[in-house]
Amino acid sequence: MPHSAINFSEKFGRFGERWSPRIVAQMNDYHFKLVKIQGEFIWHAHPETDEVFIVLDGEMTIHLRDGDVALRAGEMFVVPRGVEHKPSATGECRMMLIEPAGTLNTGDAQSDRTAADGVWV
Amino acid sequence: MPHSAINFSEKFGRFGERWSPRIVAQMNDYHFKLVKIQGEFIWHAHPETDEVFIVLDGEMTIHLRDGDVALRAGEMFVVPRGVEHKPSATGECRMMLIEPAGTLNTGDAQSDRTAADGVWV
Repeated sequence: MPHSAINFSEKFGRFGERWSPRIVAQMNDYHFKLVKIQGEFIWHAHPETDEVFIVLDGEMTIHLRDGDVALRAGEMFVVPRGVEHKPSATGECRMMLIEPAGTLNTGDAQSDRTAADGVWV
Repeated sequence: MPHSAINFSEKFGRFGERWSPRIVAQMNDYHFKLVKIQGEFIWHAHPETDEVFIVLDGEMTIHLRDGDVALRAGEMFVVPRGVEHKPSATGECRMMLIEPAGTLNTGDAQSDRTAADGVWV
């Protein structure tokens, strides 16, 4: 059985859509997703799970009702379950999301911003 | 409540020990650990869980019984549960481990290489 590394740059090169997470790996029942973002997302929460953001390239802000968190490459933040948040980025930001398989990008606020779930790249 | 990013470089600056994972974040019942490695580790497996390696700086190899996986910064690999593996690095490599809280670094091969579990930085 051949084994190979998952290379983030190579994976990011395979898609251009923003706010559209692509799964690159699974650990137990968790998915590791790469996503490109720019602009403002919508306020939402994930009532059933914490959600991890790791910035790989660029800068972003996670707006919370009681303060903002600025993140740049080499930084991470854990949004606790049930906590409303709104990601935004001025320029394009490339990041990793880690959350249970089946978690929707818009959480409890399904809308036209809700991306297809379960798409691998 | 103030919120702030977890900065990997800042966290790595707080400890020097190799093969001694330090927890920087928790997502549900999973821990995110930073670790510095250099040299050869021991063969072991984690019978109860997959284990994620993300290289943040430098290069490493995950030896598997049926092949090696070379990893450099910006790459990750998931060691499936129960699969024997032996990490190694020629120069110092800084990486992140993601696994369930309570997972020991030496898995089923506890020895003098077994690091204290549950240490935050």
